[in-house]
Amino acid sequence: VRISELSAATGVSVPTIKYYLREGLLRPGAQTAPNQASYGDEHVHRLRLIVALRELGDLSIERIRTVMGAIDDEGRSRHERYGVAHYALAEDRDGELDDDEEAARREIDAWLDRELRWKVTARAPWRGDLAAALATMRRLGRDVGPASFRRYADAALAIAEGEFADGVDGRSPESVPIADALEWLVIGTVVNERALAALRKLAQEHVSATRARRSR
Amino acid sequence: VRISELSAATGVSVPTIKYYLREGLLRPGAQTAPNQASYGDEHVHRLRLIVALRELGDLSIERIRTVMGAIDDEGRSRHERYGVAHYALAEDRDGELDDDEEAARREIDAWLDRELRWKVTARAPWRGDLAAALATMRRLGRDVGPASFRRYADAALAIAEGEFADGVDGRSPESVPIADALEWLVIGTVVNERALAALRKLAQEHVSATRARRSR
Repeated sequence: VRISELSAATGVSVPTIKYYLREGLLRPGAQTAPNQASYGDEHVHRLRLIVALRELGDLSIERIRTVMGAIDDEGRSRHERYGVAHYALAEDRDGELDDDEEAARREIDAWLDRELRWKVTARAPWRGDLAAALATMRRLGRDVGPASFRRYADAALAIAEGEFADGVDGRSPESVPIADALEWLVIGTVVNERALAALRKLAQEHVSATRARRSR
Repeated sequence: VRISELSAATGVSVPTIKYYLREGLLRPGAQTAPNQASYGDEHVHRLRLIVALRELGDLSIERIRTVMGAIDDEGRSRHERYGVAHYALAEDRDGELDDDEEAARREIDAWLDRELRWKVTARAPWRGDLAAALATMRRLGRDVGPASFRRYADAALAIAEGEFADGVDGRSPESVPIADALEWLVIGTVVNERALAALRKLAQEHVSATRARRSR
């Protein structure tokens, strides 16, 4: 189809599609005339993936390019491509860690590696997010350690095990083509993170309302 | 203390503190001379709360004002202040729902109200987030319904029940002063949401690495 039809099918404006093409997020269409190209289902799908990562994941163009690069890069191992795409989902943290955050980071590392014994790399970007959360709690006067996150760690582990057990359309993530597995990972991570955050707040309201009713 | 010391204690610049004062996020200090005011622990604490909401919660100044208003507003009922502060944590969704999202919203509402039977208001802002997540999954070709979020709903409910059972420094949220309960709710929601999202991605990496090792 033409670029105007691609736009109609996805709700993405023609100038934005051209921008994604220039930025290399979207592969060029097949040239059909000097100033005209034709786009297929692959382009529709890829555009929707970009929209999901931007709108629900708040990912920058740079990070989306990294994700798409990992999906498309057939020269690297499955394991490498998985890591590149997954780590690209992390937000950039601005600035250096201050002393409180450095101390929190060491405690978080010890907890993850020696207490939970999770197999995550030392450079996994979310270690810093946890350290920042812990340092913030302390600045607000809470006398807490990494163990205060245990509830969330247990829930997160149960969720991840369930996600991998369910797999991609019922097949194990390791048995489907890597591009499909990567898309499943990226979309599942970003979209379900929003769903989980929304459900957590709805559950808080529900629990609060239920307690209020019980105490009447 | 003076504004410069308040700045040193919190890491927030003097111009930013003056901006928060003008915007009404921070109560004025006690006037000690025509051009000088004195600030106390309450101001240090409030400033740190604002920083946490801005940096970890990405909340706008407008929303932070709403949260602070609920904490400070002694003329309203406990229940009302709880609702105002909690709903202020929701992000603004831009624009109208399209047809796909409208359909998804009706399914989400039916699921929450009739299947999960959660006690949440019809205007709870996170219903729209769930509908957007469902519509996105479908646009990306997944044949899913609200039940695909069940795993996240169960985890979210367990988390919320645990949070309320643990309470505020071991006391039930209903038994502490409302301002403390509101701060506990707001901080717990925002900071632990970041922690939960980080732990979920670390758990994904751990589960993926563990599966890879097992299959070798």
